[in-house]
Amino acid sequence: MDLAAQILALGVRARTAARQLASASRARKDAALLACADALVVAEAEILAANAADLSAAAARGISGALLDRLRLDPQRLADIAQQVGEVAALPDPVGEILREWTPPSGIRIAKVRVPIGVVGIVFESRPNVTSDAAALCLKSGNACILRGGSEALRSNTAIAGALRRGLENSGLPADAIQLVESTDRDAIRLLAQLEKHIDLIVPRGGEGLIRAVVEHARIPVIKHYTGLCILYVDAAADLAMARDIALNAKTQRPGVCNAIETLLVHRDIAAEALPVLGAALRAAGVELRADPAARTILGEAHCSAAQPADWETEFLDLVLAVRVVDSLDDALAHIERYGSHHSDAIVTRDAAAAERFLNEADSATVYWNASTRFTDGGAFGFGAEIGISTDKLHARGPMGLEELTTYKYVIRGAGEVRH
Amino acid sequence: MDLAAQILALGVRARTAARQLASASRARKDAALLACADALVVAEAEILAANAADLSAAAARGISGALLDRLRLDPQRLADIAQQVGEVAALPDPVGEILREWTPPSGIRIAKVRVPIGVVGIVFESRPNVTSDAAALCLKSGNACILRGGSEALRSNTAIAGALRRGLENSGLPADAIQLVESTDRDAIRLLAQLEKHIDLIVPRGGEGLIRAVVEHARIPVIKHYTGLCILYVDAAADLAMARDIALNAKTQRPGVCNAIETLLVHRDIAAEALPVLGAALRAAGVELRADPAARTILGEAHCSAAQPADWETEFLDLVLAVRVVDSLDDALAHIERYGSHHSDAIVTRDAAAAERFLNEADSATVYWNASTRFTDGGAFGFGAEIGISTDKLHARGPMGLEELTTYKYVIRGAGEVRH
Repeated sequence: MDLAAQILALGVRARTAARQLASASRARKDAALLACADALVVAEAEILAANAADLSAAAARGISGALLDRLRLDPQRLADIAQQVGEVAALPDPVGEILREWTPPSGIRIAKVRVPIGVVGIVFESRPNVTSDAAALCLKSGNACILRGGSEALRSNTAIAGALRRGLENSGLPADAIQLVESTDRDAIRLLAQLEKHIDLIVPRGGEGLIRAVVEHARIPVIKHYTGLCILYVDAAADLAMARDIALNAKTQRPGVCNAIETLLVHRDIAAEALPVLGAALRAAGVELRADPAARTILGEAHCSAAQPADWETEFLDLVLAVRVVDSLDDALAHIERYGSHHSDAIVTRDAAAAERFLNEADSATVYWNASTRFTDGGAFGFGAEIGISTDKLHARGPMGLEELTTYKYVIRGAGEVRH
Repeated sequence: MDLAAQILALGVRARTAARQLASASRARKDAALLACADALVVAEAEILAANAADLSAAAARGISGALLDRLRLDPQRLADIAQQVGEVAALPDPVGEILREWTPPSGIRIAKVRVPIGVVGIVFESRPNVTSDAAALCLKSGNACILRGGSEALRSNTAIAGALRRGLENSGLPADAIQLVESTDRDAIRLLAQLEKHIDLIVPRGGEGLIRAVVEHARIPVIKHYTGLCILYVDAAADLAMARDIALNAKTQRPGVCNAIETLLVHRDIAAEALPVLGAALRAAGVELRADPAARTILGEAHCSAAQPADWETEFLDLVLAVRVVDSLDDALAHIERYGSHHSDAIVTRDAAAAERFLNEADSATVYWNASTRFTDGGAFGFGAEIGISTDKLHARGPMGLEELTTYKYVIRGAGEVRH
């Protein structure tokens, strides 16, 4: 069977499974999630053997360090993965929620009801835990999923998906609610993104190259999860100790994640006082500073390098921070508009009017006043689980949990009403 | 300037205008809508002259009948168009609505706030009133719009857009909040659909060819507005008089619209009793019936033709109805799944269990129990206005009004909180 036929077959089976899942009760879906968690535990030896094979193949290709570690499973990590699948069962079921109910003058009763999206395609890179996380969230929200992970994790993903499918079978729900693309051919991404009759949504999670590959070909809706270029603006009226604590936290608590800051903007009126405090704290935490001329004069040439144009548009995802002095709130907003990725941006200030302008005018999924950008995620928002953080504006923006994996339909009950 | 540069320039100007509109108060936007309505009245002579030129060019190309009528403006139609623009001012402003507010354990206060999408591209076919309707709804919801109408209405659309832009100027809002693509080159659609930095959403409204042209090239989110293949299912436990009234209304009240039915399914157990009643009423209203063998036997060969395979998948948009006898509710649902367009589908029955199964399992934007499918529109739903009816599942499904032209952002207010 050629690749196009394989992908089509996945889509057809997913659509059938999605129909069955859509009307499955919460109890049945939760029982299936627990059965999937059990099946992962039962399959420990098989999954770890598959992972060991992935790891040695990756090592043989010269992959090492953090990348190799992301790929690695061990008994504890696998136990955590199984536990997370089980925990999704405890979350509320979004399906069936009545979002609004009303009766227009015609007398028909209209209910706007939350329903599953249908079939969700998830395209991701190396970490094998994404396989089970994404599958569990799709299952809980009543969606069938088609997963396409990175080629270096194919053996691990195949073993994990196999266990999850056995869990579904054990619980009496269709195994085809969770399917994995087992081809490593990059063309599979294009084929998935064009399967408009059988897939309702594609969620790419990973680097820019992966997301571009999906967007380029997509004929179905895509919700993109780019990493973030987040910016902290320290206003003229900032509390300096607060600005320092937030800058430190947002840059250093976990520099490799999308809600860490990459750029610090400081208002000119406070720069001479603020930059030495901020700079010393950041440098003490191991942060390399790349400053514009005004900031560099204050920080001292020995304590920072000269920012290059590319630094304003780079997501360092590392202990590196671009620093710039701005003349005004307007300049800060213009910088954020031009260079930011509209993910998470923050202002530190005591000036409520400046804060409200910032909150209104910064066109980002999440805007902060006097808090760290690190809070942008499903866990910190209290969503219980997260399929990712959307950098798109449509359907889902920001942290994307179970509700964002649903849509709605209008259910209308009448007594024979006709239109006049 | 080449076409790509023209389209890019439209996008850059729209983005700037969108920033200004996003923080415009309700009072300013409403004043602008009234100024736009006035400007349309003032420009009557200019708009009607432009329309007369479009009409004679169209007539010279052999366009006639309903198509020519859709293109035609007269003083009354133009007055109606201006009035509709003014009426949008009276609708509630969706922007700024707080959708949810909460405080997670970290202590930050999170508000999910409704905000404009930004820049909306609307690609449509011949009716010039779409130009002003779409522009008014975008303006009210704080979005800049880029409009691309049909080439046969270019002079009319240019005159209307010019008047609307003068209205914006008169009210002090940026004229670039409403822009029209003045090129008739079909490549403009592709260029718009790929302008991902400057357009946030594309809404194609029109025939399948137009929508395909957008989807094929799009790198930005698209909300499609296909016309509908709507289906009425008369269950074994139907009230016959109600079934007759609903079938008549759904087929004949306005056969050329997307929420009219194209197919009638009748349960075998009631077919011998129901089909003669339904058939007689429909034929008396001028409906041509195309029936499957079982239905044809009951209706009588003289009263219907034999349905061809293509009839089940045809949106007649005319006084033609495909009729079929089904063995069960499951068969009806399978037919709807296979042939329907997931727009609006209805069941007529006294059997509540059958109705609830239908309402749950028919995967359509709007599902009806004992009411006519003709209610699927923004007016009948009480939305006050409508940009169209989405046949997509993501972001907006079914009638799409002002709320569906918005997205949300998370606004977070803290007191120095950092992530642990």
